[in-house]
Amino acid sequence: MLLSQIDSLSWDANGLIPAIVQEVGSDAVLMMAYVSRESLARSLEIGETVFYSRSRKTLWHKGETSGNVQRIREILVDCDGDTLLFRVEAAGAACHTGEMTCFFRTLENYDGQQ
Amino acid sequence: MLLSQIDSLSWDANGLIPAIVQEVGSDAVLMMAYVSRESLARSLEIGETVFYSRSRKTLWHKGETSGNVQRIREILVDCDGDTLLFRVEAAGAACHTGEMTCFFRTLENYDGQQ
Repeated sequence: MLLSQIDSLSWDANGLIPAIVQEVGSDAVLMMAYVSRESLARSLEIGETVFYSRSRKTLWHKGETSGNVQRIREILVDCDGDTLLFRVEAAGAACHTGEMTCFFRTLENYDGQQ
Repeated sequence: MLLSQIDSLSWDANGLIPAIVQEVGSDAVLMMAYVSRESLARSLEIGETVFYSRSRKTLWHKGETSGNVQRIREILVDCDGDTLLFRVEAAGAACHTGEMTCFFRTLENYDGQQ
C-alpha cells in the first residue's frame, strides 16, 4: 500500500496533489486531475486511476460509468514530491468530449471550455 | 500574442494555471509548474517557457541561470481550459537535481523531496 510514501508526499493546503496521466506506448499526455490521500490509496488498491473531484467533492474512479478505465502501470513522483505522473493503459478516450486526450486543442484554437 | 485566448482560460483563484512540460521527440514529461497571465504572455513573446514561481512570487524564466531553456514548439489547452501542455525542445536537464526530468523516481522509491 506504500502508505509511508503517501504520507511523505507534499500535499497542498486542500490535501490534494495534481496528477498527470500519460499513456504508456503512445506517451500521449491524456489529462490532469487531482488525487487526495484516500483516492491515491484507492488507486494503489485497485490498480486503476481514482481521483478526487474538486467540483463534486467525492472520489472519482475514472471510467466507472464510461468504461474508459485507466490501468496504472507506474506512478512517478517529481523531485519536490508535489506532483505525480501516472503512466497508464487507457481502455478508451480520456476526455468527456470523446477525444482520446483532453489536450486536443492548441492555444491558438482555444475557444472556451467544452 | 493570443491575448483573447489568454483571457478566456480558466485561471484559478490565485490567477494561475498548471502547465505540464513535455519534450518533443522523446515525449517525456519533464516537469510541471504554474503560469500567470503575465508569464504566459512572456512565454509567447520569447518562445521559451516562463513560469510563475509561487515560492519566490516572481516570473521564472526556465534556464535563465542554468542555460537549460525550453524552446516552445506548441502549447495545448485541455477541455476545461484550466491546464496547459507545453511541448518543448529542452536544451538540457529540466530538474534542479541534474536529472533530465523531474519525474525520475517511482512512488515506491520516493524518499522525500530533493
